[in-house]
Amino acid sequence: MTTLYNFGAGPGMLPPQILQQASMALVDWQGSGLSILELNHRSDAFRQLLADAEQNLRELLTIPKHYHILFLAGGASAQFAMVPLNLLGQQLEADYIQTGYWSKQAIREARRYAKINIAGESRPHEPMTVVPTPQEWILSPNAAYVHYTANETVDGLEFHQAPLFEQIPVVTDMTSNFLSAAVDIERFGLIYAGAQKNIGPAGMTVVIVRDDLLTRAHPLTPTLYRYQSQVEQHSCINTPPIFNCYVAGLMFAWVKAQGGINAMAQKNESNAKKIYAVIDASQGFYRNTLHPSCRSRSNIVFHLPTAHLEQEFLIQVKAAGLVNLAGHRSHGGIRASLYNAMPTTGVDVLVQFLRQFLQQKG
Amino acid sequence: MTTLYNFGAGPGMLPPQILQQASMALVDWQGSGLSILELNHRSDAFRQLLADAEQNLRELLTIPKHYHILFLAGGASAQFAMVPLNLLGQQLEADYIQTGYWSKQAIREARRYAKINIAGESRPHEPMTVVPTPQEWILSPNAAYVHYTANETVDGLEFHQAPLFEQIPVVTDMTSNFLSAAVDIERFGLIYAGAQKNIGPAGMTVVIVRDDLLTRAHPLTPTLYRYQSQVEQHSCINTPPIFNCYVAGLMFAWVKAQGGINAMAQKNESNAKKIYAVIDASQGFYRNTLHPSCRSRSNIVFHLPTAHLEQEFLIQVKAAGLVNLAGHRSHGGIRASLYNAMPTTGVDVLVQFLRQFLQQKG
Repeated sequence: MTTLYNFGAGPGMLPPQILQQASMALVDWQGSGLSILELNHRSDAFRQLLADAEQNLRELLTIPKHYHILFLAGGASAQFAMVPLNLLGQQLEADYIQTGYWSKQAIREARRYAKINIAGESRPHEPMTVVPTPQEWILSPNAAYVHYTANETVDGLEFHQAPLFEQIPVVTDMTSNFLSAAVDIERFGLIYAGAQKNIGPAGMTVVIVRDDLLTRAHPLTPTLYRYQSQVEQHSCINTPPIFNCYVAGLMFAWVKAQGGINAMAQKNESNAKKIYAVIDASQGFYRNTLHPSCRSRSNIVFHLPTAHLEQEFLIQVKAAGLVNLAGHRSHGGIRASLYNAMPTTGVDVLVQFLRQFLQQKG
Repeated sequence: MTTLYNFGAGPGMLPPQILQQASMALVDWQGSGLSILELNHRSDAFRQLLADAEQNLRELLTIPKHYHILFLAGGASAQFAMVPLNLLGQQLEADYIQTGYWSKQAIREARRYAKINIAGESRPHEPMTVVPTPQEWILSPNAAYVHYTANETVDGLEFHQAPLFEQIPVVTDMTSNFLSAAVDIERFGLIYAGAQKNIGPAGMTVVIVRDDLLTRAHPLTPTLYRYQSQVEQHSCINTPPIFNCYVAGLMFAWVKAQGGINAMAQKNESNAKKIYAVIDASQGFYRNTLHPSCRSRSNIVFHLPTAHLEQEFLIQVKAAGLVNLAGHRSHGGIRASLYNAMPTTGVDVLVQFLRQFLQQKG
């Protein structure tokens, strides 16, 4: 069978050796004779598993002690409600940066809990779209926090610099670029990331939250939605998603073994550059209208001259073993997602395909 | 290696053939060359997978059309908040039946949203504890619904008859006896069950909700906590826990192949009887003080004369290949959980062990 390269935006590709290891653990976990799915969440073994995962993540991102790490069941969309429910406190407003599909989702949900100020917006400049740099954000004096989407998975936009504000907690959705590059954690009040890109199977979200932000929850916040309760119970108020925690632990160890975050960042950066280079050299055949300063290294989106050509592209690229390259249902076009598990060989095959297709059809 | 029988209360045992199948799917799902973990939730293949799982569950429990089936990320504890948030509507009260550890958890969370009336309580009779039969429940005229825990996993208590009330929606936590016996769905407004007993891996909950109960949600209910939003989006508002849905689908198909719910019920009933028979014939050596009318078929709890003997029991029983028999951390003692995946041979080995240990130490 041909090796397939999965360029899907999420659930994303996972390293073959981790799939292999997880596959064995489903039948017999660490020679216990039991499946990892049968591991009890109150056992010492699971406690250790979770502690190791946390420790590895803490090392990878240099997360200081006054930040708590949570492994929560469900997707990052839960955070769209959890963030306002937990962080508004007595305040009635929050600032949001609107740059695309996912920030809009976060804003829509937050509007149910507070007055939301759009403190910055991506701007469709001719010929290139730009994101508002943190220096351009207009923060409100009464906002409880400012929220932005570090990488817009659908739109292919990314903030390459973390904002630095002392006066207001910065909250960010890093779902699709978490662990893809180094991050200065102390610039943030809260970071969240759904698992199904760089962490593991869909159904879990990692939250990194600063200690001083735990005590503001709205009284109607469900217990499982309260960061403080989750911190107190080490993400185990109830049975956690055990298999997801297990695979996340494998992934963190794998990133370490690959050379850590900087090795990942280097690979991702260089791979993304190769694809953008083909796009930019295609004289408009492959069209990406985002300014280089905010092009995503995780999700590279582009269009072809016609919808018909895009269909043809998707059929041929799939035949070449490169799968899940269709753009998000709301945007169409093509999207190549380069998460940590994507090997450079996969990107090289894609680059070659892009060149050939351009030669044939351009 | 010896075959192990996992009597853990949850995450529970899963059928070996399902673990094997899931193990293969982790590396190559249905010959696609991709892992089940990489399956996109917006693909036709996943839509079909979820539709098949739902259809099989609908058939297994004869779920009428005016009931919706949801597959939600996270554990059943989320329902402790979701039920009041969604069902109270304009009403300020709800009735709860208090029979043990899990109903108390549900009550504690519900108290944050409403006045909770304890409409019935288990009673420690001499020498046997009984649960209040539905005929004994004292329902409040202003209650939005009545909630009870169909099976108390920790306490080993079970309601063997579903209540029949026309005037009030009945809500039940069936986490630990879901799919263990036939249920008259139409007696219920809402049924919920965490996955990690008879459904699949921890990290998912099945909800069955009657159509007329969808429109009462509190305005502050997070979107993912709204039954109506989940119904409208077929449990896919955001990325669902794909692997959990996949294994659940395998489990439902497996139950069908085993002969359906009645075959499961017969097996579970007969297996539980064997263990209770040893307990009752042990002249108090194995002590279970629950009235036979409410003894759980899923979780058989008992104590030995001393804590020291219980420790010895746990060490020896484990050496015999029977694992996870320790009682819940809050109760101590011994607990044998008989979920659908527990084969009769496992129960026979346990029964034999119980007899031998009694003979040696009794």
